[in-house]
Amino acid sequence: MNNKNIFQKIIHNEVLAYKVAEDSDHLAFLDIYPIKIGHTLVIPKKSNRDKIFSLSEEEFISIMFFTRKVAIGIEKIIPCNRIGIFVMGFEIPHVHIHLIPMDKESDGNFYRKRMDLSSKNFQILSEKIKRSIQNM
Amino acid sequence: MNNKNIFQKIIHNEVLAYKVAEDSDHLAFLDIYPIKIGHTLVIPKKSNRDKIFSLSEEEFISIMFFTRKVAIGIEKIIPCNRIGIFVMGFEIPHVHIHLIPMDKESDGNFYRKRMDLSSKNFQILSEKIKRSIQNM
Repeated sequence: MNNKNIFQKIIHNEVLAYKVAEDSDHLAFLDIYPIKIGHTLVIPKKSNRDKIFSLSEEEFISIMFFTRKVAIGIEKIIPCNRIGIFVMGFEIPHVHIHLIPMDKESDGNFYRKRMDLSSKNFQILSEKIKRSIQNM
Repeated sequence: MNNKNIFQKIIHNEVLAYKVAEDSDHLAFLDIYPIKIGHTLVIPKKSNRDKIFSLSEEEFISIMFFTRKVAIGIEKIIPCNRIGIFVMGFEIPHVHIHLIPMDKESDGNFYRKRMDLSSKNFQILSEKIKRSIQNM
């Protein structure tokens, strides 16, 4: 029986994801149903973490440090006014931080139609962002 | 001439706010147009900060440390499944982090009608949250 959720499968390389950054405790990859081009998810690798404010102080600061690096890497690649941060987390019981390139407030509206990107375009985009983060 | 925006006026005590936490660099207060009871804003006191990822690494980590404390203090007072984090920031050109008590994903929908709370209720709520944070 496999009770892993989608994020845990991504962490264990059982499901493909367009990864943009990784360290021993965190992973960042493109959202497969982006509300904007460059929409990225940041997650901790530990599997029993559901709510962001249940992380220990050390874990919280550590994922925020990682998130900042990812966001600045995205911002160098995607033309936008700023990167927004959204943490809700009801769909999947595993902490996840949405980073969304924004030009206006409505770019953060999660109730809009999600974008459809080809796997080739996801691949090209994730490689660009990955290099941008590595070069920081 | 007074070019201060509303957050700068709050920082300088020129406009009333229902404050819940403050340190030398940060301030947290109840959103006057809450989308949920307990909706709180966290801001840095420095006035020339518009975008969260333009903060220095040290400033970013510092405000996140403060934000975590505020969120956990709110969570002890407001019955909810979790506290969500939202950073967009197009209305007012000064970094602000929304903390929102949530029971379901739609509780983070900024396009809903804002709630109407009496100043007495704002006062009572802010005092409760303030004590909760102070007692941590």
